[in-house]
Amino acid sequence: MTETTPGWLTSDDLEQARARMPILYVEAVPVRVDDSGEVTSVGLLLRIGSDGTVSRTLVSGRVLHHERVRDALLRHLEKDLGPMALPRIPSSLQPFTVAEYFPTQGVTPYHDPRQHAVSLAYVVPVTGDCRPRQDALDLVWFSPQDALSLAVQSEMPGGHGVLLKQALAHVGYAV
Amino acid sequence: MTETTPGWLTSDDLEQARARMPILYVEAVPVRVDDSGEVTSVGLLLRIGSDGTVSRTLVSGRVLHHERVRDALLRHLEKDLGPMALPRIPSSLQPFTVAEYFPTQGVTPYHDPRQHAVSLAYVVPVTGDCRPRQDALDLVWFSPQDALSLAVQSEMPGGHGVLLKQALAHVGYAV
Amino acid sequence: MTETTPGWLTSDDLEQARARMPILYVEAVPVRVDDSGEVTSVGLLLRIGSDGTVSRTLVSGRVLHHERVRDALLRHLEKDLGPMALPRIPSSLQPFTVAEYFPTQGVTPYHDPRQHAVSLAYVVPVTGDCRPRQDALDLVWFSPQDALSLAVQSEMPGGHGVLLKQALAHVGYAV
Amino acid sequence: MTETTPGWLTSDDLEQARARMPILYVEAVPVRVDDSGEVTSVGLLLRIGSDGTVSRTLVSGRVLHHERVRDALLRHLEKDLGPMALPRIPSSLQPFTVAEYFPTQGVTPYHDPRQHAVSLAYVVPVTGDCRPRQDALDLVWFSPQDALSLAVQSEMPGGHGVLLKQALAHVGYAV
Repeated sequence: MTETTPGWLTSDDLEQARARMPILYVEAVPVRVDDSGEVTSVGLLLRIGSDGTVSRTLVSGRVLHHERVRDALLRHLEKDLGPMALPRIPSSLQPFTVAEYFPTQGVTPYHDPRQHAVSLAYVVPVTGDCRPRQDALDLVWFSPQDALSLAVQSEMPGGHGVLLKQALAHVGYAV
Repeated sequence: MTETTPGWLTSDDLEQARARMPILYVEAVPVRVDDSGEVTSVGLLLRIGSDGTVSRTLVSGRVLHHERVRDALLRHLEKDLGPMALPRIPSSLQPFTVAEYFPTQGVTPYHDPRQHAVSLAYVVPVTGDCRPRQDALDLVWFSPQDALSLAVQSEMPGGHGVLLKQALAHVGYAV
Repeated sequence: MTETTPGWLTSDDLEQARARMPILYVEAVPVRVDDSGEVTSVGLLLRIGSDGTVSRTLVSGRVLHHERVRDALLRHLEKDLGPMALPRIPSSLQPFTVAEYFPTQGVTPYHDPRQHAVSLAYVVPVTGDCRPRQDALDLVWFSPQDALSLAVQSEMPGGHGVLLKQALAHVGYAV
Repeated sequence: MTETTPGWLTSDDLEQARARMPILYVEAVPVRVDDSGEVTSVGLLLRIGSDGTVSRTLVSGRVLHHERVRDALLRHLEKDLGPMALPRIPSSLQPFTVAEYFPTQGVTPYHDPRQHAVSLAYVVPVTGDCRPRQDALDLVWFSPQDALSLAVQSEMPGGHGVLLKQALAHVGYAV
């Protein structure tokens, strides 16, 4: 999970908090849907880590102090997909799952070496023009079948591949 | 629940089926949402029954043979709200609840004297221009608070008021 | 999906209804859970079809006229797992998904050559002693990982393997 | 929301964190269910605040660093209801809603003057003997109808009455 907006926490503050309590995140799986709401493709961000490894990620980021979950979702979608993506934030806050990223591997399928993050995960249709900003190189659209392929899954470390599978299972796809 | 599209069942066939097995319905609560997905108003259809009583209803109707649930949702939304309503059918088929209408009162909060109907219920944002067709006089938009008022609830018989409350609770409103 | 309790529909009646409207089913994925609610194993019924093929299935069956969904769930769990299985029927009727079995292949991931069945699917912890009755040979418990294996999936035709994957994704497993 | 287990955060640490980021909570609505899973009664804790006011609350508390959500649920249920309550923690982490308590009133229906808390809310059947511990005087069981009454709702400040209504709507009750 990449979070480059420091908000009004200094880096030191954030480091301290990360060592002491779970950090609340939101995560969005951007999708294209047809008129009947069926998911036709899934958008994955292409990133290059500080160590040069290529990975594909979902839209994600922290919820700030005094920020509503739905505003955090909108902010991170605009941050990652650009201002013209036109995401349809869900009307209900009920997530399809809660992903628990532990600094220790193996506690759950999710892993984040930096912190204990608890992430509310949503499928979010986007209808506009997506232009990844910040540290993402590109946004690539996959069919649900291709998104579930081993090739794509192998580029989604830290349990993000599991989360993507859960999202697709929630909308009716499981291969 | 009003269903005036007979499909390819004759009236006699439908009567027979209704006496012998639960009939599958879909129900949609049409809402307007803001950019953050928050529900700002709820649309209720104004109908006059065959006995002259005024009532407010949700969008609902049968699922036909060989019809997908999402296609039935789309069809009934277009039937009740007109072709320009632009409903956003949910990407997941997980309903917020399942409403069971029994011909006998008191088994559940829902009641339909004609039949045992089991209804998959969804909150559906609509973004376009709604023009009720068929037997509805009008579509009236209410704030969530007004939709929960006693006055509106008293005009929603058969448990539809309960279902509306459940829908609003699902999106964060309960007064 | 196997349904051997005819209820008070004659075979002819059922045949007629199946040709004309979607038939409402419930489906349960029986699981064992630990004290923290985490799924530790999944129960699959071993069946031999009329043509001699071995298959593994979930608990499933029709909802009868004037029967509540939760009573149908309980009835089919007792029918398939025996009277001492002690299933914990969910307090909410919100299913984890709705599976649409079409007589035509390819419309959805689910297929039933006999009928158009729409199934409300639930994960149901069982705490007692399971003794499969009726036409099932045995109930076999699998770890979530083994239940997701290709070997097991290949023995679950008609989309039941997909539904099992969706159930496991819903409770946090996706391999 | 009452949280008296400081974990390994000092009071000062917790104060600091509360001023800077949302704090993750879990909340449980304890219920009794019948064999078909239907909720027959709801348990509310009776508390006396530091200012002498009587209030009724749900089970709630913080998720600690490196603690799973389901372990936090179990810990708080045992803390509030005693070690013999035998709660049935849900197999899926999907909450029925996410309640956002803001220090400022009016942002959401939920309010906590001490902090910005984000709470994952679950309905949890308990089957054993409940003996409230800590600062609760008593656990009182209400029928769903009585729990929704104005008298009870007026004793649940801070939006907990709204959350209870949402929980009951989720399991089929809305009066």
